Order: sequence, then C-alpha cells, then structure tokens
Amino acid sequence: MKPIDPDFRQRVTNSFKRQTIMDLLGAELTRIDAGLVEITLPYRSDLCQQHGFFHAGVTSTIADSAGGYAAYTLFPPGAAVLTVEFKINLLAPAQGEKLVAIGAVVNPGKTLTICDVEVHAVKGGESRLCAKMQQTLIRRDGTEIDR
Amino acid sequence: MKPIDPDFRQRVTNSFKRQTIMDLLGAELTRIDAGLVEITLPYRSDLCQQHGFFHAGVTSTIADSAGGYAAYTLFPPGAAVLTVEFKINLLAPAQGEKLVAIGAVVNPGKTLTICDVEVHAVKGGESRLCAKMQQTLIRRDGTEIDR
Amino acid sequence: MKPIDPDFRQRVTNSFKRQTIMDLLGAELTRIDAGLVEITLPYRSDLCQQHGFFHAGVTSTIADSAGGYAAYTLFPPGAAVLTVEFKINLLAPAQGEKLVAIGAVVNPGKTLTICDVEVHAVKGGESRLCAKMQQTLIRRDGTEIDR
Amino acid sequence: MKPIDPDFRQRVTNSFKRQTIMDLLGAELTRIDAGLVEITLPYRSDLCQQHGFFHAGVTSTIADSAGGYAAYTLFPPGAAVLTVEFKINLLAPAQGEKLVAIGAVVNPGKTLTICDVEVHAVKGGESRLCAKMQQTLIRRDGTEIDR
Repeated sequence: MKPIDPDFRQRVTNSFKRQTIMDLLGAELTRIDAGLVEITLPYRSDLCQQHGFFHAGVTSTIADSAGGYAAYTLFPPGAAVLTVEFKINLLAPAQGEKLVAIGAVVNPGKTLTICDVEVHAVKGGESRLCAKMQQTLIRRDGTEIDR
Repeated sequence: MKPIDPDFRQRVTNSFKRQTIMDLLGAELTRIDAGLVEITLPYRSDLCQQHGFFHAGVTSTIADSAGGYAAYTLFPPGAAVLTVEFKINLLAPAQGEKLVAIGAVVNPGKTLTICDVEVHAVKGGESRLCAKMQQTLIRRDGTEIDR
Repeated sequence: MKPIDPDFRQRVTNSFKRQTIMDLLGAELTRIDAGLVEITLPYRSDLCQQHGFFHAGVTSTIADSAGGYAAYTLFPPGAAVLTVEFKINLLAPAQGEKLVAIGAVVNPGKTLTICDVEVHAVKGGESRLCAKMQQTLIRRDGTEIDR
Repeated sequence: MKPIDPDFRQRVTNSFKRQTIMDLLGAELTRIDAGLVEITLPYRSDLCQQHGFFHAGVTSTIADSAGGYAAYTLFPPGAAVLTVEFKINLLAPAQGEKLVAIGAVVNPGKTLTICDVEVHAVKGGESRLCAKMQQTLIRRDGTEIDR
C-alpha cells in the first residue's frame, strides 16, 4: 500500500499523543508502516476485569486505535479518521505481561476503510492471539467531525 | 425477566468493584435491575481521543461492562460471565459532561446471552444516543474461565 | 422521522421489484413507513439449512433488505443505498410458517445510516424473536455505486 | 489443524446436501480441508439486488456456510454446528461470473469456534475481495439444537 503523504509517521505520532487515554493506560506506539500500526500495552493491575485479565474494553481501546491509525497512514494531510463501528471477538483470556495490537488495512476506500486488527497476549515471552477485530473507519476532510 | 438469585444486586456490585479499570476511568454503577445495568462515566480530559471526545474504546469499556452485568444479573450464584464478542456503532461524537451506558438483555440463554447496549452522551443536560452495541456473553460455571 | 421524498413508498416498491433474489425466495414487502420496512418470507422446504430451519443466510437476506429499505425511505429521490456491513445474532431456530423481518432506522446520517433489524419466526401463530441485526448503510448520490 | 474425525469430508458433504438453499442458489462445495471450506456460486440473474450485483444476503449465505463447515471439519462425529452470529463487511460490488467464499477457522474452541471468511468476486477471470466475515459458531452435541 502506497501512502499519499510521505510524512505519515509523523502525522500518526502527533495524533496518538493527543489521545490522552493512551497515556492513562500506558499504551505505546511500537510500529508505524503504510497501512499497518502496532500498539503495545504493558500489564498493570488497574487495567483489569473481575478475574484479573485485561478488560475487554481495554483490549478494544488499543485495537481500535491500532486499526484507526493503520487507516490514517494512507490518508492525505488534513484528513481526519473516525471509527464508524467495529466488531471484536475475545478469543482467549487477555493475560500476561503485555498486549500487542496490530491493525492492518484490508480495503482502503475513498470514504470508508476496512481494517483487521489482531491482539496478542504475551505471557512468559509466548504470544497468543487473544482478540480479533473487524473495523470500519471513515475519512472526513476539513472540519467535518460527524459521521 | 426473573433473576434466579435474589442477591443479584450484591453480586454485580462485588464483581464491579473487582474491575479495576472502572476505578481508573472513574466509572460508576448507577442502576442494577434484573436484566438491566447502567454505568455512568463523568468526563475527564484523560479519557479522550485526538479530537477531545471520549475515546471509542472508553465508550466500549463501559458498554461492555453494562451489557455483561445485565446478563450476570440473571445468572445463578457461582457462575461467571465472559464476553464472547461485541459489535459497536459510534453514531455521534461522544462529548459532554458524562456518558451513560445502559445494557439490556435481549435473549437470555442456557449458555449464551445476547444484550443490547446504548450509550448516551449528556451535554448541557441533554442526552444523545452516541453508540449502540450488540453483544454476546457466555456463562461459565465453576472454574472454567475460557470460552 | 420525516421523509424528504413524499413518494418514498413507490420508490421502495420499485427498487424491491428489481431485487430478483426476493422473487426467488418468495419474500414480500408487507409494510413501508418512514424509517421502517417489513419483509415477510413464507416457509418453503428449499430455503433451509441442514436441520430444516430457515438458513441463517436467508434470514440475513430479508433482514438486510428490510434495514436497507428502512434507510432508503428517508433518502431523496435519485440517491442509492448500499450496505456497508451488518452483524447478526441468530437467537433461536428460525422455524415456523414464516419469517417477518422489521428494519428500523436508529440513526439517520448525511452519509451513513444505522439500522436495527429484528426477525421473528411465526410458528403456530406465535411469534418469537429469532434474529437481531445491527447494520450500517451508505447513501450514494448520482452514479457512484462503490462504498 | 488436526481433525478428530478422519471422515470429515464425507460428513461435510452429507450435511451440505441437506442445506436445500444451496441447491436453490446453485452453490457448490469446491474445497474441504481441515479447518477450511470453499463454496462457489456461479452468477445467475435471479440472485441479485437492485443494481444487478449479487445480493449481500446471498454473499452472506455462502460465506456463513463456508465458515460453518470449516468449523464442522474439526468437530467429532455426531456433533452439530450452529451459527451464533456473524459480522460481514461488503467491500466492493459483488459482480462477475462467480463468487468464491473461503471459510477458515481462526480459533477452534471446546464450545465456540471463530472463523474468518473471505468472499471473492471473479470477473473476467480476475478475483477481487468483495466481502469479509468474522463469525462465531457453537458446537452442540446430541440432540441440542438451541444456542
């Protein structure tokens, strides 16, 4: 996939910094390529559901941003990305020392971009697919921020 | 809907307290009825995406718990609830002084329960539907915690 | 909900007639209101899955059209409707003398419209919710037919 | 992926023959491997939506069966497969001489199996991804046919 904007990495990095929730959770951007973004989230005991695993909403948060920024890498400067919807399957307990979400563009479109996001739980150094998301993003130009 | 366990409110309250992410976000249980649970999240500037709205993952987090606990109200003591999957549409910017997620059981089943969750953004006292989730939960008995 | 086009019923009826699959399955338009469309499908033994129930894909077909046309009732003349995506839960066996799909607009948008569709299985005169769909539609003007 | 039942191909073939809708649509089983099933559907003018493309419900029908049978290849004899839910994105017009749906198991589970299904539209000999499904299946043993 060919990015329109050669400075897409900088654009993603800047936008990610404005996502204040990432800082609250402790999530980090660990890879930015054209059509592919990875976000890593180290375990903390305040990110959990009732059994001590990462909460499904936390898993969804980094997955949503990984997919959204994967789409965003292919946008022109000045365009905004918004999530239209996503569907996520929780496949296995999200437990371990960290989660790694990898968002990849499946179908880049004029208006809508479809992404696939996998989240892996890394435990004792071993990685296991713990969630899978299929996501629809919309590109908005100028000042439109509604869907 | 008839709960099997008359102490379902206590069971939900106890489990919610163990969801450490709720405390981190500042989310509160504001209603527990048979088959219906509401969670409220006041605005904070550290819960946001790049435009200053609540992040879609934060919206999803309270929606997922509202639906999960709605299902859980109908479970017998000793059973656990896990999210199998959910799909969420973000309908409007999640902005305002608070979000209110209302999870309702649509179809209670022996193994699987289906819920509908609406999230409303309250801005200047006015409420607007900003997200809608359709969710599948699984009941696990005893010590099973996988899906 | 207020339709822009007073002739929306005629527009839906005409478009439905061009959906040749509806004729193959034997599906009929049984209600058209602003933001709400109902499609009814009588049982036939050639519409089934391996246990003799309506196939989930058949249920999805009438649900998708019911939701799509519900959105379409609110469009101006000349606009086209396309399904972006949908998610459907199959809640109970789709068995009985007929299926009734009711599509309703949840959030009408400039570009995207979100619908909720319920499918009821009518057996021995009793109706039971057998499927629930959450659907995203896009409005395309002029000759654009891509998403 | 290792099938428990060495006769899985025969089991899938027999079950597919009982899906009467496949015969009505003209769909054919074109590949059966452990954890992977392909269904092909030649174009016919009575399978269409209002613009003359394959109807999204028809696309969903073969995708649902491809994913369901992919899961079924890994089941023991005597077990049944039912669709819990699926989510499908329609990525491009489903036009051409045939559709090919490829269902693949992502996560085989004791109770639930998650599949990924891609549907390709073949036009003038060229194949294009036109739909993508993420699907949850349940295994039922004995005579249980509810979810």
